[in-house]
Amino acid sequence: MDIQPIGTVRSELKKPTLLAGDDGLTLDQRMDEARTVHRRIKALECDIVLDPQYEPLLDGIDGFSHIVVLYWPHLIKSRSSLQKVHPMGRKEFPLTGVLSTCSPARPNPVLVSAVRLLERRGATLRVRGLEAVDGSPVIDIKPYNPGYLRVEDPVVPDWMEGITRELDRED
Amino acid sequence: MDIQPIGTVRSELKKPTLLAGDDGLTLDQRMDEARTVHRRIKALECDIVLDPQYEPLLDGIDGFSHIVVLYWPHLIKSRSSLQKVHPMGRKEFPLTGVLSTCSPARPNPVLVSAVRLLERRGATLRVRGLEAVDGSPVIDIKPYNPGYLRVEDPVVPDWMEGITRELDRED
Repeated sequence: MDIQPIGTVRSELKKPTLLAGDDGLTLDQRMDEARTVHRRIKALECDIVLDPQYEPLLDGIDGFSHIVVLYWPHLIKSRSSLQKVHPMGRKEFPLTGVLSTCSPARPNPVLVSAVRLLERRGATLRVRGLEAVDGSPVIDIKPYNPGYLRVEDPVVPDWMEGITRELDRED
Repeated sequence: MDIQPIGTVRSELKKPTLLAGDDGLTLDQRMDEARTVHRRIKALECDIVLDPQYEPLLDGIDGFSHIVVLYWPHLIKSRSSLQKVHPMGRKEFPLTGVLSTCSPARPNPVLVSAVRLLERRGATLRVRGLEAVDGSPVIDIKPYNPGYLRVEDPVVPDWMEGITRELDRED
């Protein structure tokens, strides 16, 4: 299946938070720094610049408060040998299959994120809260349709709850 | 960017609800039938059968109540000329850019759906509520991470609210 990028992320964020090696993930900073970056990304505004021919395909997007962005983590090297990782590269979390984590290194590294749409100008969308680094190829833009994406009371394992709690903690 | 399917959907659902032609979408049934199908899909259980080599990559998935499935709508013909559609093929809804709709015909037709995970058996995941038809190639499985996908109080345009209300209506 052939996928052609339809645009590019333009962001102040220049490098990914997680690095993938042959032996797993490494958090490229200490956890307190990760928390700072996480908080910064939540507030970060960036542009999704689509190629001009896709401009008409965006008509009506400003009726949505949120959009879903599919993008390619182009700075993460493909690691087809990578089967299991410690989430966030932390040994205290159980070794977990990559499809059961948000690892950017996965068989088909298409990342999905729901973000706040702030403004549309022609073929450019200004959004808040996108973790994609500058230059990430964009594969698709979708409206946030709660019917497909909103889940009431999702259950996640302890390790994911722990990471979320730790990243969101106020000091 | 090259994408290789990692598995296949096995479902009782044999044909897509929407058809895409050069001049837009057609709802392949009357709206009351669409409502019946929608209700059936919500309760429908189906299997996502991954290729055996991906079995270890699923370890830990049963800690999640919901997963996100990325799949390819293989029965929808690619329509690169298609720029705008009437949502659900209905003329009373405004002509809208395909990236602002859930149209399966879009530049990169990667569909995303959050569904209930019922059971994992080896490389097979039993899920409830997946709209993918039988034989759809699966591109990725992700855990449902509320941090990336759950939005509080998303705003959608009137046409999408109308469709949702109509499909969910109890008679």
